[in-house]
Amino acid sequence: MTYRAPVSDIRFALDEIAAMDGLKASGAFPEMSGDLTTAILEEAAKFANEVLAPLNRSGDMEGCTLEDGKVTTPKGFCDAYAKYVEGGWQGLQFPAEAGGMGLPRVLGMAVMEMMQSANMAFSLGPMLTNSAIEALLVNGTDEQKSLYLPRIITGEWSSTMQLTEPQAGSDVGLLKSKAEPNGDGSWSISGQKIFITWGEHDCAENIIHPVLARTPDAPEGTKGISLFLIPKYLPDENGNPGERNAIHAIGLEHKMGIHGSPTCVMEMDKAKGWLIGPEMGGMAAMFIMMNSARLAVGVQGVGIAERAYQHALAYAQERRQGRAPDAEGPAPHAIIEHPDVRRMLATMKAKIEAARAICYLCAVSADEAEHEESEEDRAFSRRREEFLTPIAKAWSTDVGVEVSSLGIQVHGGMGFIEETGAAQHYRDARIAPIYEGTNGIQAIDLVGRKLGLHGGKAFEEILEDIQRTVEDCSTSSNPELPELAKRLKPAARAMKDAADWLTSREDRTDALTGATAFQTLAGDVIGGWLLCIGAVAAQRRLKEGEGDTDFAESRIEIARYFAETVLTAVPGQLDSIRLGYERLPDDLALGIN
Amino acid sequence: MTYRAPVSDIRFALDEIAAMDGLKASGAFPEMSGDLTTAILEEAAKFANEVLAPLNRSGDMEGCTLEDGKVTTPKGFCDAYAKYVEGGWQGLQFPAEAGGMGLPRVLGMAVMEMMQSANMAFSLGPMLTNSAIEALLVNGTDEQKSLYLPRIITGEWSSTMQLTEPQAGSDVGLLKSKAEPNGDGSWSISGQKIFITWGEHDCAENIIHPVLARTPDAPEGTKGISLFLIPKYLPDENGNPGERNAIHAIGLEHKMGIHGSPTCVMEMDKAKGWLIGPEMGGMAAMFIMMNSARLAVGVQGVGIAERAYQHALAYAQERRQGRAPDAEGPAPHAIIEHPDVRRMLATMKAKIEAARAICYLCAVSADEAEHEESEEDRAFSRRREEFLTPIAKAWSTDVGVEVSSLGIQVHGGMGFIEETGAAQHYRDARIAPIYEGTNGIQAIDLVGRKLGLHGGKAFEEILEDIQRTVEDCSTSSNPELPELAKRLKPAARAMKDAADWLTSREDRTDALTGATAFQTLAGDVIGGWLLCIGAVAAQRRLKEGEGDTDFAESRIEIARYFAETVLTAVPGQLDSIRLGYERLPDDLALGIN
Repeated sequence: MTYRAPVSDIRFALDEIAAMDGLKASGAFPEMSGDLTTAILEEAAKFANEVLAPLNRSGDMEGCTLEDGKVTTPKGFCDAYAKYVEGGWQGLQFPAEAGGMGLPRVLGMAVMEMMQSANMAFSLGPMLTNSAIEALLVNGTDEQKSLYLPRIITGEWSSTMQLTEPQAGSDVGLLKSKAEPNGDGSWSISGQKIFITWGEHDCAENIIHPVLARTPDAPEGTKGISLFLIPKYLPDENGNPGERNAIHAIGLEHKMGIHGSPTCVMEMDKAKGWLIGPEMGGMAAMFIMMNSARLAVGVQGVGIAERAYQHALAYAQERRQGRAPDAEGPAPHAIIEHPDVRRMLATMKAKIEAARAICYLCAVSADEAEHEESEEDRAFSRRREEFLTPIAKAWSTDVGVEVSSLGIQVHGGMGFIEETGAAQHYRDARIAPIYEGTNGIQAIDLVGRKLGLHGGKAFEEILEDIQRTVEDCSTSSNPELPELAKRLKPAARAMKDAADWLTSREDRTDALTGATAFQTLAGDVIGGWLLCIGAVAAQRRLKEGEGDTDFAESRIEIARYFAETVLTAVPGQLDSIRLGYERLPDDLALGIN
Repeated sequence: MTYRAPVSDIRFALDEIAAMDGLKASGAFPEMSGDLTTAILEEAAKFANEVLAPLNRSGDMEGCTLEDGKVTTPKGFCDAYAKYVEGGWQGLQFPAEAGGMGLPRVLGMAVMEMMQSANMAFSLGPMLTNSAIEALLVNGTDEQKSLYLPRIITGEWSSTMQLTEPQAGSDVGLLKSKAEPNGDGSWSISGQKIFITWGEHDCAENIIHPVLARTPDAPEGTKGISLFLIPKYLPDENGNPGERNAIHAIGLEHKMGIHGSPTCVMEMDKAKGWLIGPEMGGMAAMFIMMNSARLAVGVQGVGIAERAYQHALAYAQERRQGRAPDAEGPAPHAIIEHPDVRRMLATMKAKIEAARAICYLCAVSADEAEHEESEEDRAFSRRREEFLTPIAKAWSTDVGVEVSSLGIQVHGGMGFIEETGAAQHYRDARIAPIYEGTNGIQAIDLVGRKLGLHGGKAFEEILEDIQRTVEDCSTSSNPELPELAKRLKPAARAMKDAADWLTSREDRTDALTGATAFQTLAGDVIGGWLLCIGAVAAQRRLKEGEGDTDFAESRIEIARYFAETVLTAVPGQLDSIRLGYERLPDDLALGIN
C-alpha cells in the first residue's frame, strides 16, 4: 500500500483552521505566498510519496545494526537522507539568515506530517535535528551558531537529544552524567545515556549531540543540570569534521516498532563539549528543544494515523465480503459498504482531521508568538501555544494508537499478518504517547501548569473563541451548522466545569487524579471546535462558490460526524474527571499484599 | 516478570458472580465440591505459573518454523504439552463417560484463563481442541466418538478449526474447498485453508481437523457447506495413527504476535475425511465450535489483560521516579504513588474484573443451559448464554487490547523495548478482537439477532436482574453500595434506551451503524452490574465476618471505581449509538474520489 500525501486536507487545515495567511501581516515571512505554499506542499508530497514511503516496510524488516561502534541504517535510508539534504527540507522553518528557508513553523509541521506518514522511523532523525536547531538559535553563542548551525540547518550534520539515563526518565533530575571544566571553556563529559534516537548512524557526516549533564558541585535535582553540545567529530580549523570525540554508541535497543530508527545507548568518556546556554540553565534550554519536539511528536501521531487510515481505506474498498445492506451490485460487496466498517473509517478520518487541526493551530500560534507585531498579540499567541502543546502531543498520539488499531481491525485477519503492513503502523504508533514526556506528564503540565497560567487566561480565551464558533454555527444558513453548535456548546461547558473543579481543589492529588481524563476531554472539545471552524469556512466557500464543492461539503460531514459521536460523549466524562484521589483503589484493591 | 495466577480473584468470580455452586443442584456434577474446586484451581495455577509462563517470552522470540511440511514449535512447548496431557487438563470440562473429568465448563474457563495469561500462544492449541470436542460430542457419530474422542479428550491428539480461505473470511459462505464422495461413506476433500491455528505441529501424535467444504452440487453460500473430519494420520485398525493423510501445512504466517502459535496455510489434496453432522449442515456444526471458541477468546482477552496488569503492577512498585504528592519517604518514589499511574492500574484492574465476570457468567449459563433440571431454567440459561456470548467475546478482547496498551504506558520507554515483555502482551492481545468472528461481527450478532431473540426476552431478563441488583445496593447498610446503585441505574436505563432505538428502526442499516457502539455500552453496563453483584456479596461477607476482610473490601472498591469512571460515562454514549446510517460520512468525505 503506497502513501499519498493528503495535500488538500493539509492545505485546508493550514488555510482555514490555522489561518496561516495571517502570518504575512507580521512581515516576518516576506517569501510567503499561496503559490509558494502550493509548491512546497507538492514537492514535499513527492518526496514523502516517492522517496520515503517505499522504504517504510523494508526499513521495518531490516532494522539497524551496530558493529564496532558503527550503526548501519536500513538499505536506502542514506540515499533518502541525501535527497532530504539536497531538497533543503531541514531548513524550511528556520530563518534565512541562519541558512534556512525562512518559512513558518506551521508549514514545517505540514511537511513533517507527510514525512512521518511516509516513514516514521526515518523522519524521527530530522525531527530531533529541528529541536537541536531551536536550542542553538535561542541559546547558542555566536561562535556555536556560526560553527554548527549552517551545517545542521542543511542537514549535512544531524542532531540528537540526550536526556534520559537508566535511572532518570520522566524524572530527568536524577541524571548522573558529569561535566568537568577543561579550563579553556570546554568541558569533559562522562556518563551513559539511553533511548537516544538516531544517536549514531551512517547517513550524516557528523552528529551534534545536545547532552544534559551535571557540573561539579551542582545541586541535586533539575536545578543542577546544564546542557552541553558534544559533536561526534570535533570541527577542525575549517569547520570540517576533525578528531573523533569520545562519545559512542555501545548498544541498540530491540524495540517493538520504528525499527528503522536506531535507538542507541550512548557512552561518553570525557567527551569534549561546550555549554549551550548558562551553567545550571540546562532545564530551560532543554525545554526549548522539548517543546518543539512535543508538538512534532503530536504531528507524528497525525502522520502515523493518516498512514494507517489510507492503508485501511484502500483495503476496505478492495476486499469483498458479505452482503452489505444498502450496496449496489451482486455480493460479495466491498467491506466499506458495511456500516460497521464505514463507521470505523469515519472515526479514523474524523480524529485525524481533529488532531491535525490542533497541531497546526499550535504550530501557527508558535509562529505568531514569535513574529506578530504587537507584544499583546505575541503574548496571546504564546499563551495559546503553551496551552495547546500538551494537548497536541498527547491527544494526537493517542489518536495515532487508536487509529492504527482500528486500521488493523478494518483489515481483519490480514491486519495481524506483518506482510500487510497495517501491523507496522500499530507497532510504530505505540511509542509516541511515551517519548518526549509521556502523555501522563503532558496531563500534569496541562492541569498543573497550563490551566492556571497567567491567571487561567489561555483557557478563558479558548472558551471565548469556542463561544464565537458556537455563534457562527448557530447563525449559519446551512441547517447542518446549528446542529454542530448544539453539540459544541455543552461539550465546552463540560470542559469548563471540569477545569473549574480541577483548579479549585485544595488537594493537588485530586487534580492529578483527573489530569489525563481532562486532557482527553480537552482534546475532544478543542478538536471538535476546530472542525466546526473548518465547517464554517467550508460553508463560506460553498456560499461564495469558491473551490471544490464536494471537498467543502466533506468538511461539514466530518465535523458533523465528530460532533455527533465524540462531542456528544463529552459531558458524560465529567464525573470521571471529578473523581478525586481518595476514590482510587488502594494497594490492597490493586492486589498488592 | 513472572505470572502468578490470581486464584482469589478467580474464585470470587466463580463463587459470587457466576454462582457456580448452583450447578450442584442439577446433579450433573456429582464430583463437584468446594474442595475439589480449590484443588483444581491450585493445580492449574501451578501448571500455568511454573510450566507455561516461563515459556512465554522464549516462545515469542523463537517462533515456529516449517521445513519439509514439518512444523517445529518453540523449545519447551512439546514438554509443556506433554505435561498438559499428563495433567488431564484437556478433559476437565467434558463428561466422564467421554473420558473427561465431568466438571463444569465455567471451571474449564477459569483454568483456560490462567493458561492464556501464562502463555497465549501455547494455550490457543488446547482452546481449539476444546471446540472440536464440542462439535464431536454434539454431531459426531458413535463410531467417530469412540474412535476419536478418547484420544482428543486426553489431549494426545490435538485439533483445529478449518474455516477460512483467502476469499472467505467473515463471509465463510464464499469458501471453495470441495468434497467428493468416495462411495464408502468417506469423502475426498481438496482445497486450501488459511489462518489455521496449530494446523501442524510437533507436540501431538495426531491432529484431527474439522474442515468446512462444499459437496458436489451444493448451493452457493452458507447453505451449501458441510463439516468434515480429516485426521492428519488415518487411524489404523487399533485406532492408532496410521497412514498419512493428504492434508499438509504449506506455509506459516509471519504475525505481529502469538509467535509461538503456528498459524498455517493448509493444503488438502483429496484428503480423506468424514462428515460431522449432516451434509449441508456445516454451518450449524461450525457454530457449535464457534460459540465455544468465542467465549474462550473472550477469556483469552481476560487472560492477556491480567498478564499485562501483573507486569505493569510489578514495574510500578519497583520503578522510582519523581516526587509523588502524598507518598512517604524520600523521593524518588515508586511510580505507583503517582496518581496518574495508580489510575491507569485501577482502570486495568477494574476492567479485567468486569470482563472476567462477564465471561464466567456466560460460561456458567452454558453449563446451566445444558444441565439444569427444568426446561424453563435451561431455556432461561440458554438465552442468557446466547446474549452474553458476543459481549463476552468482544468486550473482553477490547479490554485485552486496552489493558495491554495501558501496561505499556505504565512502563514508559521500557514498555517499548521488547526485552521488558510488556510489548509482547500488546502484540499478542491484538489478534483477539479479530479471530473467531471480528468484534464487528459479534456486534451484528448482538444487535441483529440476540437483542430480538425470543421476543427480546434475554435482554429483558438482564434488565430485570440489574434492577434487582440496583435494589440490593440501594438498601445496603454500607453507604458505598447505594452510591453504586446511583451509577448503575441510569447506565442500565441508557442501555435500554439504546436497545429500544436500535430494534425499532425500520432501516436495518441504522441498527448496524450503532451496533459496535452498543456492544461496548452493553459490556460497560453488564460488567458494571456484575461488579455490583460482587460488591453486594462482599458486603454480605463483611457483615457475616466471613473470609478475608481486606479482600471483601477490595471488591467494593473495584466496583466503585468502575461505577464512577465507566458507568458514569454510559449515558453520554447514547447519541453516538443512535446516529443512523445517513449520518456516516460518504465516500467523498472519506477521501474516495
